[in-house]
Amino acid sequence: MRKQKPVKDSFVIMTELVLPNDTNTLNNLMGGRMMHLMDIAAAIAAQKHSNRIVVTASVDNVSFREGIRLGNVVTLQAQVTRSFASSMEVHIDVWAEDIPSGTRIKSNEAFFTFVAVDQSGRPIDVPEALPETPEEIALYEGALRRRQLRLVLAGRMKPEEATELKALFAME
Amino acid sequence: MRKQKPVKDSFVIMTELVLPNDTNTLNNLMGGRMMHLMDIAAAIAAQKHSNRIVVTASVDNVSFREGIRLGNVVTLQAQVTRSFASSMEVHIDVWAEDIPSGTRIKSNEAFFTFVAVDQSGRPIDVPEALPETPEEIALYEGALRRRQLRLVLAGRMKPEEATELKALFAME
Amino acid sequence: MRKQKPVKDSFVIMTELVLPNDTNTLNNLMGGRMMHLMDIAAAIAAQKHSNRIVVTASVDNVSFREGIRLGNVVTLQAQVTRSFASSMEVHIDVWAEDIPSGTRIKSNEAFFTFVAVDQSGRPIDVPEALPETPEEIALYEGALRRRQLRLVLAGRMKPEEATELKALFAME
Amino acid sequence: MRKQKPVKDSFVIMTELVLPNDTNTLNNLMGGRMMHLMDIAAAIAAQKHSNRIVVTASVDNVSFREGIRLGNVVTLQAQVTRSFASSMEVHIDVWAEDIPSGTRIKSNEAFFTFVAVDQSGRPIDVPEALPETPEEIALYEGALRRRQLRLVLAGRMKPEEATELKALFAME
Amino acid sequence: MRKQKPVKDSFVIMTELVLPNDTNTLNNLMGGRMMHLMDIAAAIAAQKHSNRIVVTASVDNVSFREGIRLGNVVTLQAQVTRSFASSMEVHIDVWAEDIPSGTRIKSNEAFFTFVAVDQSGRPIDVPEALPETPEEIALYEGALRRRQLRLVLAGRMKPEEATELKALFAME
Amino acid sequence: MRKQKPVKDSFVIMTELVLPNDTNTLNNLMGGRMMHLMDIAAAIAAQKHSNRIVVTASVDNVSFREGIRLGNVVTLQAQVTRSFASSMEVHIDVWAEDIPSGTRIKSNEAFFTFVAVDQSGRPIDVPEALPETPEEIALYEGALRRRQLRLVLAGRMKPEEATELKALFAME
Repeated sequence: MRKQKPVKDSFVIMTELVLPNDTNTLNNLMGGRMMHLMDIAAAIAAQKHSNRIVVTASVDNVSFREGIRLGNVVTLQAQVTRSFASSMEVHIDVWAEDIPSGTRIKSNEAFFTFVAVDQSGRPIDVPEALPETPEEIALYEGALRRRQLRLVLAGRMKPEEATELKALFAME
Repeated sequence: MRKQKPVKDSFVIMTELVLPNDTNTLNNLMGGRMMHLMDIAAAIAAQKHSNRIVVTASVDNVSFREGIRLGNVVTLQAQVTRSFASSMEVHIDVWAEDIPSGTRIKSNEAFFTFVAVDQSGRPIDVPEALPETPEEIALYEGALRRRQLRLVLAGRMKPEEATELKALFAME
Repeated sequence: MRKQKPVKDSFVIMTELVLPNDTNTLNNLMGGRMMHLMDIAAAIAAQKHSNRIVVTASVDNVSFREGIRLGNVVTLQAQVTRSFASSMEVHIDVWAEDIPSGTRIKSNEAFFTFVAVDQSGRPIDVPEALPETPEEIALYEGALRRRQLRLVLAGRMKPEEATELKALFAME
Repeated sequence: MRKQKPVKDSFVIMTELVLPNDTNTLNNLMGGRMMHLMDIAAAIAAQKHSNRIVVTASVDNVSFREGIRLGNVVTLQAQVTRSFASSMEVHIDVWAEDIPSGTRIKSNEAFFTFVAVDQSGRPIDVPEALPETPEEIALYEGALRRRQLRLVLAGRMKPEEATELKALFAME
Repeated sequence: MRKQKPVKDSFVIMTELVLPNDTNTLNNLMGGRMMHLMDIAAAIAAQKHSNRIVVTASVDNVSFREGIRLGNVVTLQAQVTRSFASSMEVHIDVWAEDIPSGTRIKSNEAFFTFVAVDQSGRPIDVPEALPETPEEIALYEGALRRRQLRLVLAGRMKPEEATELKALFAME
Repeated sequence: MRKQKPVKDSFVIMTELVLPNDTNTLNNLMGGRMMHLMDIAAAIAAQKHSNRIVVTASVDNVSFREGIRLGNVVTLQAQVTRSFASSMEVHIDVWAEDIPSGTRIKSNEAFFTFVAVDQSGRPIDVPEALPETPEEIALYEGALRRRQLRLVLAGRMKPEEATELKALFAME
C-alpha cells in the first residue's frame, strides 16, 4: 500500500518584491513573470510532498485580473491537492499588496501539475495525498474533474469517457 | 466598422538559448521560465496586431512533454488567431532543438489572451483579425469555443450557455 | 502619543530555490546572494510595520555556517523586533532544506535596521512596536543593547555611555 | 571533399523585448546588451551550420546609430556567409520597432566569426557554406576581404599580403 | 613555518554601474544588492591571498549612509587585513559617484571574513598576511579585536575572555 | 578654446567573477557577455572624461583568443585615448585570471567609441583629451587612423580620402 501524507505538509509561502525587470512599460508585473513565480512555489510544494525532484507537467487555465505594480509585494501560497501515481496537482493562491497604500487584492488562482522523477529523470511514485480540512477535501475531490479536463484538452482522453467533467459543466 | 487586419501581420519568431539559470538541478528548462518566454513572444504578436501596449489576460491549459536541456535552442512562433473587442487570442508553437545531436521536437502549444490598453491602462478596441489560410481559419473558428471554456472556468459564463463547448466535448 | 502595532503584524515568510547563478564554483549559495535575500525579506517586514517605503540603514554581524547547495530551498522568516522614531530593527531567521534528502538546517540569523521615508526620501516616524509572546519580548529588550553596539561601532556613541552593552559583555 | 550546406539552412530570427535592466539612464538599450544579443543569435546560426558547439572568435566593427527605447521590440536575423576550415563568418541584421507608434528602423549590421569545437574544445572542420541568392553570393565573396582585414588588424597578416583588401579600399 | 604574503597582493578594485534592477521604488540602490557586490569583491581579494576557493564565513556590522542613485558608479576596494589559519579578514571601502554632477561620496566600509577550502570543501591553511604601510598595520592590529567581537556575538567566546575587546570599548 | 583634461583622469578598473549564467555549455564565458562588460567599463571611462551621460557609437574589431572559464576573475582596464567634438575613443584591456591555478592571461583588447549627450539626448562637446605618457601618446596618435577606418567601414568616408589609413596598411 502507498504511504499516505497529509496535504498540509506540502504548504509553501513565497513572498516577492516586484522589481523593475519584472514589469512592462506600464510598470505592471508581466504575466509571464508571475507564472514563473507560481511554477517555483508550486514545484517546492510538490517537492515537499514527494521528497523528489519534480518537473512541471501542465498548467491549467490562469486568469489575470488587476495589474500588479512595481514595488508591490506578491505573496504566493501553494499546497498539493491530490496525487496520482507519480503526478501531483498543486493549488496556488496569489495576493498582491501595495503596502504604503494598505491595499491587498487576490490576484490569481491556479493549478499546476508536476511529475516526480528519479536522478535519471524517470517518473517515480509519490505518497498518497491526505486532505483533512473541508477546503482541502473539496480541492481533493475536484482534482479528478480537472484531471479529466487536462486529458481531454491534451487529446489523451475522449470527451465521452470524461464522466467527471459532466459535473463541471452541469450537464446531464 | 472596425478596421480589419490579416492575422499573419502579427507573426513573431523568437529564438532563445537555454542558459544555466533557466534550468533545474536536472539541467532541464523549468516550466515557469518557458511560460515566461511564451508570454513575451505572444505579447509581441498581440502588440503587432493592435499597435498598442497589451497586458496578459489569461493563459489556457499548457502541457509540458519532454525535457528541454541546457544548451538547447528554443524556437517560439506566435500569431494572433482572433480578436474580440479589446482582447486578442494568440496561438504559440514551441520547438526545442539539440543542434549538435540534430534532434528537434515539438515541445508545447498554447493559447494566451491579451487585452490592448491605452496609456492610462484602460481597454481599447483592436482591429478585427482576418484569417486567410485553412490553418488560420481553423484556429479562428476554434477561438470562440476556447473563449467559452475560459469564461466557464473563470466562473463568468454558465456552462449551459456555452453552446460552442458542446462541439469541443462532442456532446449532443 | 505614537500609534502602537503588534510586531507579529510584520511577519513575513519568503521561500527561494537556489538557482545556478546564486552559486559559486563549489555549487554553494554565495554569502552575498544570501544577504540580498535577507535584505528583501526584512525590508518587506519593515514596510508592513510602517506602511512606508523603507531604506536599509544597517546590518549587524552575520555568520555563515554550513554550505547551502544548488537546488536547496531557502526559507526566510522576518519580523520587526522594535522601533525607534523612524527606524525599525528586523530579526531574520534562515533555514536551508535539501528536500530530496530530507535534511533541514538553521542556516543563519541576523538583525537588519531600516528607516521609513516619505516620497522625497526624508525619515518619518513609524508606529511603536508591541511585542506579545515571551520570544518577542526578549527580542524587544535586546534591541536596545544591539542598537548601542551599532552606534559604538559606527563611532556615533562613546563606549562608556553604552550602559546596555555591559549586559551584553557581562561586565561590571 | 568537405560536405556542402546551403547558407540559408543556418538562418535564425530572434525577437527580444527591451526590458528595464537592458537600458541606461536615458531609457535607451545599452550597446553592450545589444552585442550580447547579436552574439547569441549569431552563435545559433553558426551552430546550425556546423551542428557543433561554437565559440566566438571575433567581432567586426559595429556602429550604433539611433537609440533603441525601453519597450521597443528588437529583431535580429543571422545567417552564415562563408566557412573557412573550422571557422564561420555570420552576418547579422538588427531592426528596432516601436510598435505602438508604428516606427521600425534598421538599427545595426554586423559580422561575427565563430569557431566550431569538439567536446574537449579543439577546433573541428565544418561544412562548406553554399550561397544561392545574389545577396548570399555577394556576402560570400566579401567574406574573404573582411577576413583579411581581421587578420591585418589582429597583426596576423602583413598588409601587403592582403590582396583582397585593395578592393575594399579601392586602391591600385 | 607558514608562507608570508604582503597584504597588498590581494588588492582588488571593482567598478559597477547601478542598473534599474538594483534599485528600489525610490531609484536608490538596495542595501542587499550592495552587500552582494561587497561579497564578490572581498571574495576575490581572499582568493588572491590564498590562491584557493573561498567561502564567506561572516560579515561584520555594515552601516548605510546616503542613498546611491540609479546610474551612479560604485567603486569597491577590497584588501586582506590579516589571516588566521584557514580564515582571512577582508576590508572593503565603497565609494559612490554621480559623474554628471561631479559628486563622489564614501558610502560604506565593511569587514568580511572568508575561509579557504580545498576541492571537497574542507578548510585549508592560507599564507600569513604581511602588512607594510601604517594603514595596513593598523588594520592588521585591529583584526584581533574584531575577531573577538565576532566570536562573542556568535556565542563562541565568553566576553570575559575577550581581552582585546576591552580596548575597543575603552574599558578598564 | 575647449577645456583640456588628462586622459588618465578617465582610468577605470573593473573586476568581475564569471558566474554560471555568463557561460556556454563548455563552461566558457560567452563572447557577447564579455562585450557587455567591456561596454560598461568603457562607458564609465567616457563618462569620467566628459562628466556627461554617454551612448555607445561604435565598437572596433575585437578578437577572442583563449577561453575564459567559469569561476575565473576578469579584470578590465579602460581609458579614453582621444576626443573629437562630442565623441571619445576608449581603449580597453582585458585580463582573465584563474586564481587557484595562478594563471593570468591577456584576453582581449578593444576600442569603443562613445558620444556625450545632454538630458534630451543631443550630442554635446567634451573636453580635449591630453595624453601624457609615451603609451598614451601612441594611442592618441593612432586614434585618427582608427577613426578613418571606422568611417570608411561605415560608408561615411571614401577610402581615397583616408590619408591616415595608408600608414595602417603600410602602403605608398
